Amino acid sequence: MGKEKKQELIKNPKGTRDWSGEDVDILEDILSQISTVFRKHAGKKLDTPVFEREEVLKGKYGEDSKLIYDLKDQGGELLSLRYDLTVPFARWLAMNNNIRSYKRFAISKVYRRDQPAIAKGRMREFYQCDIDFAGASDPMIADSEVIAIVVEVFEALGWQGRYTIKLNDRRILDGMFEVCGVPEDKIRAISSAVDKLDKSPWSEVRQEMVETKGLDPAVADKIQTYVVHKGGRDLLERLQKDEALMANAKAKTGVDEMALLFSYLDAWGATPNVSFDLSLARGLDYYTGVIYEVITEGSAPVAAISNGTTAAAQEQGKKEKKKLAEDEDRSNDPSVGIGSVAAGGRYDHLVERFRPNADMPCVGVSFGVDRIYSITKARLAKGEKFDYITSHSPDVYVMSFGGDMTAERIKVSKSLLQEGLKVEFAYKKKPKPQTQFKGAETAGAPFGVILGDEEMKNGQCRIKRLGIKDDAEREAGGELVTEGVLVKFENVGKECKRLLDELRITEGVAQLKVSDEVKAEEKAMG
Amino acid sequence: MGKEKKQELIKNPKGTRDWSGEDVDILEDILSQISTVFRKHAGKKLDTPVFEREEVLKGKYGEDSKLIYDLKDQGGELLSLRYDLTVPFARWLAMNNNIRSYKRFAISKVYRRDQPAIAKGRMREFYQCDIDFAGASDPMIADSEVIAIVVEVFEALGWQGRYTIKLNDRRILDGMFEVCGVPEDKIRAISSAVDKLDKSPWSEVRQEMVETKGLDPAVADKIQTYVVHKGGRDLLERLQKDEALMANAKAKTGVDEMALLFSYLDAWGATPNVSFDLSLARGLDYYTGVIYEVITEGSAPVAAISNGTTAAAQEQGKKEKKKLAEDEDRSNDPSVGIGSVAAGGRYDHLVERFRPNADMPCVGVSFGVDRIYSITKARLAKGEKFDYITSHSPDVYVMSFGGDMTAERIKVSKSLLQEGLKVEFAYKKKPKPQTQFKGAETAGAPFGVILGDEEMKNGQCRIKRLGIKDDAEREAGGELVTEGVLVKFENVGKECKRLLDELRITEGVAQLKVSDEVKAEEKAMG
Repeated sequence: MGKEKKQELIKNPKGTRDWSGEDVDILEDILSQISTVFRKHAGKKLDTPVFEREEVLKGKYGEDSKLIYDLKDQGGELLSLRYDLTVPFARWLAMNNNIRSYKRFAISKVYRRDQPAIAKGRMREFYQCDIDFAGASDPMIADSEVIAIVVEVFEALGWQGRYTIKLNDRRILDGMFEVCGVPEDKIRAISSAVDKLDKSPWSEVRQEMVETKGLDPAVADKIQTYVVHKGGRDLLERLQKDEALMANAKAKTGVDEMALLFSYLDAWGATPNVSFDLSLARGLDYYTGVIYEVITEGSAPVAAISNGTTAAAQEQGKKEKKKLAEDEDRSNDPSVGIGSVAAGGRYDHLVERFRPNADMPCVGVSFGVDRIYSITKARLAKGEKFDYITSHSPDVYVMSFGGDMTAERIKVSKSLLQEGLKVEFAYKKKPKPQTQFKGAETAGAPFGVILGDEEMKNGQCRIKRLGIKDDAEREAGGELVTEGVLVKFENVGKECKRLLDELRITEGVAQLKVSDEVKAEEKAMG
Repeated sequence: MGKEKKQELIKNPKGTRDWSGEDVDILEDILSQISTVFRKHAGKKLDTPVFEREEVLKGKYGEDSKLIYDLKDQGGELLSLRYDLTVPFARWLAMNNNIRSYKRFAISKVYRRDQPAIAKGRMREFYQCDIDFAGASDPMIADSEVIAIVVEVFEALGWQGRYTIKLNDRRILDGMFEVCGVPEDKIRAISSAVDKLDKSPWSEVRQEMVETKGLDPAVADKIQTYVVHKGGRDLLERLQKDEALMANAKAKTGVDEMALLFSYLDAWGATPNVSFDLSLARGLDYYTGVIYEVITEGSAPVAAISNGTTAAAQEQGKKEKKKLAEDEDRSNDPSVGIGSVAAGGRYDHLVERFRPNADMPCVGVSFGVDRIYSITKARLAKGEKFDYITSHSPDVYVMSFGGDMTAERIKVSKSLLQEGLKVEFAYKKKPKPQTQFKGAETAGAPFGVILGDEEMKNGQCRIKRLGIKDDAEREAGGELVTEGVLVKFENVGKECKRLLDELRITEGVAQLKVSDEVKAEEKAMG
């Protein structure tokens, strides 16, 4: 019984995962693509501690504060695990008051004591990958660059044409609510009801507004005339002609700046990926201007990707939404039912909460990397290819057949490593041939170097092509596949390097012969 | 007063740091060098959660368990922050019992509620960077590869000839204590006293053994005859001839396998960096075989780097040790007084603590990356150069002089980004020239693209070399430095790319002229 109890302990904490094998490699490749884009836009990395003083996080997340992990009071400071990367950045900006502007990016795990739902990508520990521009910007210039970054990231990830950046502005939204007659104290509540339109049909959202939140039904109906719209410049022009709306100062500023944003997005070439969507509200309190959210095939619901603005398209969209909402709960496919894959907006007053009069307006975006990973993995499983996902298999597996040639295998390995190759060999003095071939296969090494008693006497070893899967490759590989080719000990490093380069160029189906140069040398040497 | 209190909160937790600016870039470059070496040796990444279930960490760190950070009990599991990367790896191996062998590496922060001493590199949150080989190995094969990795890492970091791998074996040490007559229940205590010989002279260590730990003075004197020795094969041969020692089975196995290890290290070419040191004991309980620790210039004490085995060299070493121990506390130089920069060994029974009969012998090494960073930074400050440390400055700063050319600056930026360049520009509609030159200088951009009202009319803009520091560069830069050169809008991306490639090749002092090709084109176009 005591033993059984001990076994129980062997697990990772609930809502967390160990990243291993190809999963962590894919994740790393994704992160590397994203940070390359961040660097190109002059982003500078910031890496803050995993925990913050409790006071730093307090009162920053509204209702969600209950999801913060606190550390035990063991004497000294009271600490909590970071909930996102935005508040630590604001804390850092407040501490470094000599900084007037900063383009910071961060890639780290964040912590939320939420009910985990792994199929939906809701974990207690998960990665975020953020870039934020802090400091003054004339209207929409920095904002447009953040959106350009979103476009570049998803293009770099190979998602061309498969994602939509939903775009709105808090000022348009709030102005619109005012114009419709929403009482000021109900604006945030109604806003959060509107935000559910990506998951629920209008009838349900209206019900929530009227029945749960006590909104006048006539006001709700007026809201409907706005929030059903999405589009691009067409929607913008429509709003510009809406005299009631344009009479509201907030909404007018929002609409004017949205027009400016569109002209900048045109310059970035980003407009085709954007959908101006009056139903986008975003949960967080601290946004003050433009807001955005990225959805993709597999985001729930897929229908929301449609840019259609006709009534028919909307009807169709609603039906699809309904169906998808139903499917969502049943699905175990990690790429279905996943929420947005990136989101952000402008938040001009967060730093002031740490340093009054800080005057540090910010705009940024956070990529949901775990979700991006899940979708990528599902697409890989369907046979899609992404050229930035690289293999980390060893290049060469070094074997010996016969006596104890451990030192010789080490020497060969060293010469391969010196050529920059990735190398593996068995940790046995006299490993069996099948053990070594199995090891090479498991590792996925394309080449084997084989040491044998006979060849050793002549200072030679054999290079053999491994893991050949079809006849075309077999034929192309020639003697390398069947017998392997003999090379001198001192040439094995550079020859393996050459073969590997060739293999990479020809994707595994080419002249995998030993170079003439080496052959000549071998001959001369007898 | 309320306001003052608020200001107080703006700090990061004690014993932690925010990694920003060039610091985090240097750290990343170091980590990238290390993980490249790990990958070459077929290492696979593992990324475990920052916290573990409390029971996983309990009873694994002896006295140091008091330094573990616990999370508050907020309902659900009791959790603690990871203390190192080894125990989470063992937990993972125990969970995945289909795995028979694994080469895992990990790069993550670990947490110790210790008294911080920043000058000595002792933090509460710090990076570790580990590689461990789990699974069966014939004696010393895997062990030798770990040591080869240590060599390759420090060579990759540019520390050639400036580090020493101190090497010993728990079995030699324990056998030696037995032969000297240390009672079994005192062996770990005496072992930990011996471990202090890198910081304290023999007289003090002897005092601790005899007075604090109640060891027979005659036994202490016998221990001295062993632990003063360090060297290479010479020391090995000396021990092989020591009949008393060789009569002890443990010591004999240790010495025999050490001989094997040396032959493998010869094959790896790693022997010159190794010092067999009988005074190396290492704190952790769980080691069962070979142990090692890497010291460098700046490790305390520097004298320990000496490979000298003559009595005179030892005497000299002791004097230096004494002096350095005194200096250590006074010094604020981050490269002085820093402990070992890497350490590890074989631990064959840790996984069994999670899964009885797991039979998962392991050997590994942990790199103290924060310390490696501190030493690297100190060396950079002294003017040393490390070619793997790369600049992340933007390549081009895009400026405009005159009216609002924001959309045009964006278009130029986009064309530069498409060439893979790093780009920045001011977030003002009509930024002042001096603001932009200042911005470019602060960012460290080597090139500026300048848009002007006049040139725009001809569809042209100007590329200018920025940040020229001396006359040689000025002369080499020619017109690019003084006036800048005119290029067509559509050529600006590829021309900047070409200039930048040229600059990289020639390290900033070459023909920074516009290519003839583009010039011809410009002329044709008029």
